[in-house]
Amino acid sequence: MKAEIIAVGTEILLGQVINSNATFLSEELADMGFEVYHHSVVGDNRERLLELLQVADKRSDLVVLCGGLGPTTDDLTKDVVAEFVGQDLVEDKPGLEQLHAFYRKAQRRMTPNNLRQVLVFAEGLALPNETGLAVGIFYQKPGQTAYLLLPGPPSELKPMFLHHAKALLAEKLPHEEKLLSRVLRFYGIGESKLVTELADLIDQQTNPTIAPYAKPNEVTVRLTVKTAKEVTGQALLDATEAHIMDRVGEYFYGYGEENTLEKVVVALLKDKHKTVTAAESLTAGEFQGTIGNVPGVSTVFPGGLVTYSAETKASLLGIDPAYLATYGTVSRECAEAMAVASREKLGTDYGLSFTGVAGPETLEEQPAGTVWIALASASGVESRLYHFTRDRAYVRHSAVMAGLDLLRRELLAEDNFSEES
Amino acid sequence: MKAEIIAVGTEILLGQVINSNATFLSEELADMGFEVYHHSVVGDNRERLLELLQVADKRSDLVVLCGGLGPTTDDLTKDVVAEFVGQDLVEDKPGLEQLHAFYRKAQRRMTPNNLRQVLVFAEGLALPNETGLAVGIFYQKPGQTAYLLLPGPPSELKPMFLHHAKALLAEKLPHEEKLLSRVLRFYGIGESKLVTELADLIDQQTNPTIAPYAKPNEVTVRLTVKTAKEVTGQALLDATEAHIMDRVGEYFYGYGEENTLEKVVVALLKDKHKTVTAAESLTAGEFQGTIGNVPGVSTVFPGGLVTYSAETKASLLGIDPAYLATYGTVSRECAEAMAVASREKLGTDYGLSFTGVAGPETLEEQPAGTVWIALASASGVESRLYHFTRDRAYVRHSAVMAGLDLLRRELLAEDNFSEES
Repeated sequence: MKAEIIAVGTEILLGQVINSNATFLSEELADMGFEVYHHSVVGDNRERLLELLQVADKRSDLVVLCGGLGPTTDDLTKDVVAEFVGQDLVEDKPGLEQLHAFYRKAQRRMTPNNLRQVLVFAEGLALPNETGLAVGIFYQKPGQTAYLLLPGPPSELKPMFLHHAKALLAEKLPHEEKLLSRVLRFYGIGESKLVTELADLIDQQTNPTIAPYAKPNEVTVRLTVKTAKEVTGQALLDATEAHIMDRVGEYFYGYGEENTLEKVVVALLKDKHKTVTAAESLTAGEFQGTIGNVPGVSTVFPGGLVTYSAETKASLLGIDPAYLATYGTVSRECAEAMAVASREKLGTDYGLSFTGVAGPETLEEQPAGTVWIALASASGVESRLYHFTRDRAYVRHSAVMAGLDLLRRELLAEDNFSEES
Repeated sequence: MKAEIIAVGTEILLGQVINSNATFLSEELADMGFEVYHHSVVGDNRERLLELLQVADKRSDLVVLCGGLGPTTDDLTKDVVAEFVGQDLVEDKPGLEQLHAFYRKAQRRMTPNNLRQVLVFAEGLALPNETGLAVGIFYQKPGQTAYLLLPGPPSELKPMFLHHAKALLAEKLPHEEKLLSRVLRFYGIGESKLVTELADLIDQQTNPTIAPYAKPNEVTVRLTVKTAKEVTGQALLDATEAHIMDRVGEYFYGYGEENTLEKVVVALLKDKHKTVTAAESLTAGEFQGTIGNVPGVSTVFPGGLVTYSAETKASLLGIDPAYLATYGTVSRECAEAMAVASREKLGTDYGLSFTGVAGPETLEEQPAGTVWIALASASGVESRLYHFTRDRAYVRHSAVMAGLDLLRRELLAEDNFSEES
């Protein structure tokens, strides 16, 4: 079944915004068994959008439009598609209630143009927006091209697609053979090394297919199998996964498209009833802010310290300034003292520390990217030296990910130990 | 002059690669005065590419194609465009020499398919590839649509465009008028309210155009003017900016596409030789992590505290547990005590605190999104209650942005005060 994606928005044509929605939707649609043959981008312009719709309607079974559902007169996707398919626009009741509730809660007066966001097709289905106000639309006349209208901001489009549109498409545009997929997540191995390790598997791939994808500081591998029977498909995925794990299993940390290293670490901490704190220098709170985004983290994380300057390493952690002067702040000694002191100060099972050179400037004659991370626990303290690359933001993110992985491995190692003992 | 961009590559349609080339080229072309009205993506498929070329040839003065110049049989862009415009393919001499030199240096045997990479149009111009092997092509028959063929990898496309194609386009497709643009950034006003305030200006816009764009917790407005003379263009931008500032100037915080609220705040702190710390509960380090990403922040930020649990608010900040029990941690009293204690503890000019309910669960019977932020300074402490919406990550980001803006306004107010005194 043929699908195509039309993004609507002058800001994409001006190069102000990247069309990441097309990438996300393509991957999802391919997984469901759709063949995506075209992406198009058009500005906020009625005539040019109509021209595109005429072409798309002829060549595709499903047309997904993203963007242009907002409150301004620029936002014309809904009006133009409604005109094209011959539908009246009516207010969506649940969307309208959500809109009013939003403005009540925000204690702001709603301007009338906001009502445009809850208009839907008279004979279409409304898709709720969990993270915004513009309601989505699915519309299909039997035997004709189906239309799916999604909001432009990725933070709104993704949950709407995953939680609402996906099931609807599977029901309304069924494929005889289903695609099943499984995402494996790896930390600590680069994409090109992973591809080299799996080269023969990737070359021979037919069913399942093996698609590696590089993300900031991690690599995911998506296995996709085409199958009429769920149980057969899962068995094929299991077999391919086992081959992959033989080669690169030591870098595997978890499953799932929306999984993260911090989610895995917080889940492990909860599981084992362990707590963690941190003393952060170059990351300046980013490690704690990252685990802080996992709901329910409060049972495993009481808080911690940001010791950016040498002075705060002394005043907040009680590290002897003379000791710091001797070894420098970018040193194993400083990292280990920070980790141990943070753990003692907060009374947690683990204390992590981050100290190093975020850049762009050097520090203590060490180049940007030089980072020490230490992990203190009941059994002592261990530390590692890293040499991260790229810009300041990437160095800091790399450090946060490395800290998460150190802790994850420690938690898993303790597991083995207690099982053995 | 109308331009459009066609990316060729099945990997983009599968969602494995994001179409960042279109974003880069759009921005460059817009700056040169081209009007980019369409982006398209098509797979490595002769028929579908030919169909697109037929449409593009009619509606655009310049068609930029990227991808499909490589050595494999999948790489068919050159063959298809050559067929479409009626050109023979011939070997480019400098490209051929570079190719042989590459394989000599790599001490690898060249497979014959590599010769495809140096084929160019008999009557076209070859564009050298500084970072790869596939040669680019520019082709134009007088009075007809021009074609620019660029390689797919961004690391090859960008230098080829910037160092070779750009000057060629300026010469072969000259514009009398240039585009100048200016980005204004606003915090504290939603996109729909801003659009309402500027409605008549936006309706009347011709030159400059006014394009508002919503980003997480801020709104940008891009003014773009078409002008033959830089000085005239800047004057037109100034005039429009003045009108906009009359209406919504109180929310303006800075200029520039790559500017951020944290950059503005850190610059103000440096300017005024002031320092800041924070005690963070629901944001769990994200405020400090955010300012920590600005290079050179160490002169204004020594560090701070993450007091996620009630216990750490007592142990790290010295707040009386009985006081916390009386007022709760999601309270003005707790926020103000945290801000004052953090400032005293770190010895900074300012202390910011964040306490509230990140969600998704309620806390102390208060709904997710309820946040108190306090700012302590030499002149005392002030605090504000916020009701943020959406999910956990957005609530925390909203709190960070609100804290940055509180501090920014305080720094600007001190400025006025010292000027007056």
